[in-house]
Amino acid sequence: MTFDHHSIDDWKKLARRELKDRDPEELKWRTPEGIEVKPLYTTEDLADLEHLETLPGLPPYVRGPRATMYAGRPWTLRQYAGFSTAEESNRFFRDNLRAGQTGLSVAFDLPTHRGYDSDHERVVGDVGKAGVAIDSVEDMKILFDKIPLEQISVSMTMNGAVLPVLATFIVTGEEQGVPHEQLSGTLQNDILKEFMVRNTYIYPPKQSMRIVADIIRYTTNEMPRFNPISISGYHMQEAGATCVQELAYTIADGIEYVRAALSTGMAVDDFAPRLSFFFCIGMNLFMEVAKLRAARFLWADLMQTLFSPSNPASLMLRTHCQTSGVSLTSQSPYNNIVRTTVEALAAILGGTQSLHTNSFDEALALPSEFSAAIARNTQIILREESGLANVVDPLAGSYYVESLTASMISEARKLIDEVETYGGMTKAVEAGMPKKRIEESAARRQARLDTSEDVIVGVNQFVADSKDEVDVLEVDNRAVRESQIERINRVRKQRDEKRCAAALEKLKQCAQAGEWGLLYHSIDAARQRATVGEITETLMEVYGQHRAVPQAITGVYRTEVRDSNEVDEIRQKVNTFVAEHRRRPRALIAKVGQDGHDRGAKVIATAYADFGFEVDIGALFQTPAEIVRQAVDNDVHLVGISTQAGGHKTLVPEIIEGLKNEGADNVVVICGGVVPPKDIRFLENAGVAAVYGPGTRILDTIPDVLGMIENSLEASAESVGV
Amino acid sequence: MTFDHHSIDDWKKLARRELKDRDPEELKWRTPEGIEVKPLYTTEDLADLEHLETLPGLPPYVRGPRATMYAGRPWTLRQYAGFSTAEESNRFFRDNLRAGQTGLSVAFDLPTHRGYDSDHERVVGDVGKAGVAIDSVEDMKILFDKIPLEQISVSMTMNGAVLPVLATFIVTGEEQGVPHEQLSGTLQNDILKEFMVRNTYIYPPKQSMRIVADIIRYTTNEMPRFNPISISGYHMQEAGATCVQELAYTIADGIEYVRAALSTGMAVDDFAPRLSFFFCIGMNLFMEVAKLRAARFLWADLMQTLFSPSNPASLMLRTHCQTSGVSLTSQSPYNNIVRTTVEALAAILGGTQSLHTNSFDEALALPSEFSAAIARNTQIILREESGLANVVDPLAGSYYVESLTASMISEARKLIDEVETYGGMTKAVEAGMPKKRIEESAARRQARLDTSEDVIVGVNQFVADSKDEVDVLEVDNRAVRESQIERINRVRKQRDEKRCAAALEKLKQCAQAGEWGLLYHSIDAARQRATVGEITETLMEVYGQHRAVPQAITGVYRTEVRDSNEVDEIRQKVNTFVAEHRRRPRALIAKVGQDGHDRGAKVIATAYADFGFEVDIGALFQTPAEIVRQAVDNDVHLVGISTQAGGHKTLVPEIIEGLKNEGADNVVVICGGVVPPKDIRFLENAGVAAVYGPGTRILDTIPDVLGMIENSLEASAESVGV
Repeated sequence: MTFDHHSIDDWKKLARRELKDRDPEELKWRTPEGIEVKPLYTTEDLADLEHLETLPGLPPYVRGPRATMYAGRPWTLRQYAGFSTAEESNRFFRDNLRAGQTGLSVAFDLPTHRGYDSDHERVVGDVGKAGVAIDSVEDMKILFDKIPLEQISVSMTMNGAVLPVLATFIVTGEEQGVPHEQLSGTLQNDILKEFMVRNTYIYPPKQSMRIVADIIRYTTNEMPRFNPISISGYHMQEAGATCVQELAYTIADGIEYVRAALSTGMAVDDFAPRLSFFFCIGMNLFMEVAKLRAARFLWADLMQTLFSPSNPASLMLRTHCQTSGVSLTSQSPYNNIVRTTVEALAAILGGTQSLHTNSFDEALALPSEFSAAIARNTQIILREESGLANVVDPLAGSYYVESLTASMISEARKLIDEVETYGGMTKAVEAGMPKKRIEESAARRQARLDTSEDVIVGVNQFVADSKDEVDVLEVDNRAVRESQIERINRVRKQRDEKRCAAALEKLKQCAQAGEWGLLYHSIDAARQRATVGEITETLMEVYGQHRAVPQAITGVYRTEVRDSNEVDEIRQKVNTFVAEHRRRPRALIAKVGQDGHDRGAKVIATAYADFGFEVDIGALFQTPAEIVRQAVDNDVHLVGISTQAGGHKTLVPEIIEGLKNEGADNVVVICGGVVPPKDIRFLENAGVAAVYGPGTRILDTIPDVLGMIENSLEASAESVGV
Repeated sequence: MTFDHHSIDDWKKLARRELKDRDPEELKWRTPEGIEVKPLYTTEDLADLEHLETLPGLPPYVRGPRATMYAGRPWTLRQYAGFSTAEESNRFFRDNLRAGQTGLSVAFDLPTHRGYDSDHERVVGDVGKAGVAIDSVEDMKILFDKIPLEQISVSMTMNGAVLPVLATFIVTGEEQGVPHEQLSGTLQNDILKEFMVRNTYIYPPKQSMRIVADIIRYTTNEMPRFNPISISGYHMQEAGATCVQELAYTIADGIEYVRAALSTGMAVDDFAPRLSFFFCIGMNLFMEVAKLRAARFLWADLMQTLFSPSNPASLMLRTHCQTSGVSLTSQSPYNNIVRTTVEALAAILGGTQSLHTNSFDEALALPSEFSAAIARNTQIILREESGLANVVDPLAGSYYVESLTASMISEARKLIDEVETYGGMTKAVEAGMPKKRIEESAARRQARLDTSEDVIVGVNQFVADSKDEVDVLEVDNRAVRESQIERINRVRKQRDEKRCAAALEKLKQCAQAGEWGLLYHSIDAARQRATVGEITETLMEVYGQHRAVPQAITGVYRTEVRDSNEVDEIRQKVNTFVAEHRRRPRALIAKVGQDGHDRGAKVIATAYADFGFEVDIGALFQTPAEIVRQAVDNDVHLVGISTQAGGHKTLVPEIIEGLKNEGADNVVVICGGVVPPKDIRFLENAGVAAVYGPGTRILDTIPDVLGMIENSLEASAESVGV
């Protein structure tokens, strides 16, 4: 039987009828990336696409870096995890390896990221939170006890303190009897994106780039199985970047690292095949698939055009992916299993080389063993039960996916070209350009959520009547810190102080002379049991410390929420406040401790400013005392503390205590971010006026907060008898 | 930049290198459907595919029955749910409607399915288990209290007792003031597949087909918004059918229903546009997508060829889908959220019109409110957060998906042609052909699982160390039954007995005369408050009752598990038993109560027979007393009871008691099927030797069971002083 042939016009007529005479053009979907997605794609959409009809394993690698992809060997199941102590993490790693995991991924605590030893006064609240604390080789040896480093590949998320941490890892291998050339794994070592979004930098951009280059140089010569850098878009999407921004800035970062490595005198084919990437996979299934396919094309295309390598592997983009943390919700957390499954599927359909799936409770706390098992099983089920691993790039040829891939390529090219006009990414970062763009996207997204234009189930739509109970992991931060300090003291006591000091001195001289060999000398210092903090400080004496000036964007949130009765009422309330108190409500939006995730803080700052608050943004990495100082000096009504890394139980009460001691106990303190449900009561008892979890509508908080400020002003007026 | 063009030969060379000189041909995957899936598909695979490059909304509808699909209107979120009482179900329905569900789907209890009133002696253990009990219009009125039937479409899974149940629904509408023509919804009413797999039939095949035709005729004339039949492959896949079997037999069933409807004198265009389908969506993502696309093509093609309708809507296959129950596991039940997400995604990518997502605890019990909420949210998240609903048939054009669609079409055609050689599906069913084919597939699948050739995470691979605690729903069966009986008595007391009897008499006469009007007269009887049981019995007097002869297939399981040390050892143990006892171990594999799901029983029977047991298969729908009788008469060593529907707590203890009373307490009793964890202890206390949940390796049970039989024989030998 053959059916009549129909034209697109037939389809349009029919579509119009189904839509009761609305134009089918209205069904077009303008994504946050600015891409126009049509309701119908046909073979006509494939005409003239430059990336089409290539083969996997061959340039430009759109269909995957390997010819056989998962049919030959499945992706690596690599779960990022760190518990507070090296002992606990080691046990967790060994359990996971037994349970089918095929690679390890280490999360470090924030003091380690920022190069502080656990006994440093600035990191009291942060030790052992959000990951494992590593102070010296002795910690690293416990972390990998009975894990054969010549067999298991290890991924380390480390950027700021990358020299001392990599050095302790290499020395751990040496002391296990594993030669450098047999160590395999990946280092994040992507400092550019830290200046854009996550802020775990230590030294200024130029000096930081020198360290990156030094590491690429060393590992290229000594550690052929090791990927010296994982060029990471992940944190950009987490910070609010669109898929196109994530794609473009990551590729542009990659190009900048290639230039840095070339500056050490290596040839491109010496190192480029070992560069790797790291993307975030959010909920927009086909967009994420297209992003990975476009990334491979763009990388091959740019590498070829700019550096003409001889080895095709230098054109090949290999990537790790992680499902999105920011897409998860603290409300109805079991829904997150669904989200992570969709995202994992997108990563696999996009052809990732390895994958981390988030645990469903990560919007509440670090994963528990139960939630970590489900996250791991998500990947194993996809691998073993769904038939996904049998066919290479199964969506190739799809009219929609190929068309979207082409759109991603062309949109990303525009942003990459813009970075080039600055003279490359180091300079674009110094100018703050990509950071600003990403923050604007974050504010737009928040506005779309606050007005329910974007839906998150259980948060701004379909909210459950009752709350799910979830047992979350709690880290005893004090105990961890004490035991780390004890171990540092033991290390310092047992080491040969003279040889240790000599090694550090050589490192310093190398940096001063502007020579290559920073990692070489760091390894030597680590062998002599120099600590992470000591190695970091040694270089700081030469390089200095980077301090960012906090800036807020304005107007974006307000424009995106548009006018409504609600918006009018909020403006009215602020105006009334101004009229009554003859000043604007003033808020200090602060991060405390070593956590640099500032999307939330920035978005709130811009929204509050857009609604008439005077907003101070605290510098990053402040101590409670410094925040108190700033609040008092600026005479603010409100301190809003954004916390993502679990230090709140230690640090927030100190701020409240400090305000009291300064006689500023009329300042209203609120918290936002990742706060486990049972900590909310704790914080309220400590004097926090309100805790706003992920998913809170900012519009709801403004009248709330104004009310609290009014009450507090009245109460203090009464107490002084006014 | 343009890259060199590469040929498939280049790819093959590269692939061979990646595989360390193995032939890439070895990566081909032979699916259970017998389809050979290649590792790589390219544009060359699209050559000469007859179904390609058509448009959605237009014949042959490969890309979907509507032009705008979900971009115009998303799929209907329709959760199948029944609690034991009409009151509870009503509350649940209303909650779901508030929570974003857009259609209702009713699960009935087994007595209702089989046309028994709740006070019938054969259904003591089954009332209110697995769904809601409906005895009369009064129950149905409670079920839909405050639910406006002119607005909400209602799907009813009803086949055997379809006349009285539909009649009570229509009368409920009347008494709400909703005229027949405004009622919308779908009836399952697919009796052919009941004879193949699920067994909730009442009358013999030919008479049952007459009822189907009568209903199509009535609803076509009176209820234009109502789909009189949902041609269902769902239960075939649940019973072990491959995707191709499910597809082919469902389409063949559909053709048979069209023929039956034509026999009432209607024209094909009168009714064909209102036929609908119901498919199961399992874990093989792309296979399921291809199945739905192939189904639409096949239906259009066959309808056109066989019946040449004038209305294109008569060629249009519209379908409901439900995620697979049999893919879920009782071990690590939270993993099931992942599975259901993948399956839901497949249904959506395949273009389903409505969808039910299973709850994660369904391998343990009926869904709890918590698990039902997650199941519902799974769909809402896919609809609202993943961008899936914006583009019609997004996989169209994919080399792999299009090629697989073509394979599904050609493989299914072979099976449909075979059915036609029998003279259509009624005759094929009478001959037992499709049932046998499906049971063979089920035995093969079980063998592949038992040998870990197929993997189920948490079951035969990656088994968790600890068990997840899940609160499951428990139904108080006794209380439900008592309240139902009370209500029946009230109905009988209040009705006009004479008018009721007269209405039933007219129904009987209609059946005797072989006239159309069975539903018409059933409605009248329902108005007079005749019960479901009374209407059913009235017709049974004319039509008789269907009793299937249980048959087992042999050899399939044994062939598929292949030889191994384990297999040899099991055979040796059975041989030793035979030598010692001079007879083979004999087992009665029985279903008890009104549950007709016999996949598990059949698979176990065939496996045990293949390993040297003498196996009796119990008839379906037996009472405990009947099972005891058969066990004693055949002098069996073992009674294996398969239970899926929750009647085990009432019925199994009765069997053990009965055996004791017959002096047969040396018979070992084991249970298999869906048994909530906390019921296991209860059953063991009642005397059950072992409870084998879903996921048990049959190979493991055989030595176990032999040991139990030996112990029991020894114990009884001792007790009589031998």
